[in-house]
Amino acid sequence: MNDPVIEYWFDFASPYSYLSTAHIDTLARLRGVRVLWRPLLLGPIFRAAGWQASPFLQQPAKFAWMWTDLARQCARHALPWRKPSQFPRNGVLPARIALAHAEAPWIASFCTRVFELNFVDDADIDDVDAMRRLLAELGQPADAALASAQSPEVKQALRAQTEQGAQRGLFGAPSFFVGDALYWGNEQLEDALDAAIHRR
Amino acid sequence: MNDPVIEYWFDFASPYSYLSTAHIDTLARLRGVRVLWRPLLLGPIFRAAGWQASPFLQQPAKFAWMWTDLARQCARHALPWRKPSQFPRNGVLPARIALAHAEAPWIASFCTRVFELNFVDDADIDDVDAMRRLLAELGQPADAALASAQSPEVKQALRAQTEQGAQRGLFGAPSFFVGDALYWGNEQLEDALDAAIHRR
Repeated sequence: MNDPVIEYWFDFASPYSYLSTAHIDTLARLRGVRVLWRPLLLGPIFRAAGWQASPFLQQPAKFAWMWTDLARQCARHALPWRKPSQFPRNGVLPARIALAHAEAPWIASFCTRVFELNFVDDADIDDVDAMRRLLAELGQPADAALASAQSPEVKQALRAQTEQGAQRGLFGAPSFFVGDALYWGNEQLEDALDAAIHRR
Repeated sequence: MNDPVIEYWFDFASPYSYLSTAHIDTLARLRGVRVLWRPLLLGPIFRAAGWQASPFLQQPAKFAWMWTDLARQCARHALPWRKPSQFPRNGVLPARIALAHAEAPWIASFCTRVFELNFVDDADIDDVDAMRRLLAELGQPADAALASAQSPEVKQALRAQTEQGAQRGLFGAPSFFVGDALYWGNEQLEDALDAAIHRR
């Protein structure tokens, strides 16, 4: 009997991953479920479907609705929200940092703050200075963390992680794996956590 | 102060509309919310986005996941489920019947049974004999109901209703309107019902 575990796959550009990131750490801790943080880049996955970027861009009505829905859901959960002036934002640098430090005790805080930069502060997230400030706020040696995040090994590992997600059937974010079972979308987060408990 | 009302927009080809249809009548009655049944045809809406049919068909991984997710959700809700051998099924005839009889006291039962034909019995739903049997089971004069459903007025009204949905921002199904506020997806059904109560 193992400890219950959930894999959380997310992209810092994904607005619905902002919702999941805001809640997963608390919801998982309350249930005694361990979260494995799995940043990926949705770009290659969407391009494989023939799209330039987010599938929401394929239907103007759906894209317009998405912003309305996010504002509504954030209001319901008392989460701060500002519609970003750029979408989707490039999040390669924070994804590399998150991958390089996925086991760090500050990973949940780091990811939460990157999502807040994007969806509350409307700020560039693929920015070395912004990441350095954020790491320093978390009490981390920023230069060392940035250097390891930008190593060839981590760059390759992020490509490999994205490819592994696609091979396991992932097609968007947020996504949650419990073993081989894939849950997709913020509204399936609690189902996935419950499944993690029943599976162990 | 008006009675709370929700508009339920659905397509008989839509598997997630099967889930909503199975629950909306009971959930709305418990809250004292009146349901306005709004069948539409998603085909023209999806073709406007450049697709032949369902957006799920745009990503093979998402399409494969959809069937897994539906089986899982039906199991959780103790709803019968069989993956249909044809997807999406043409549902023009039942949509016309539902539109012509949207105010009938048997509309919820009719819609539920059409969805069960598609997603439990794996049967053709655009079939005059099947619809005649179903109407007879509901104690209705089947030939008269079929005749009115196939009148030029009803055919045109279904096209107009679909067009009205698109103009109001609808992009998929199941969808729920509470006033001008659009809720999309089966998992937003209860949010929409709650909004209907708070809005009245």
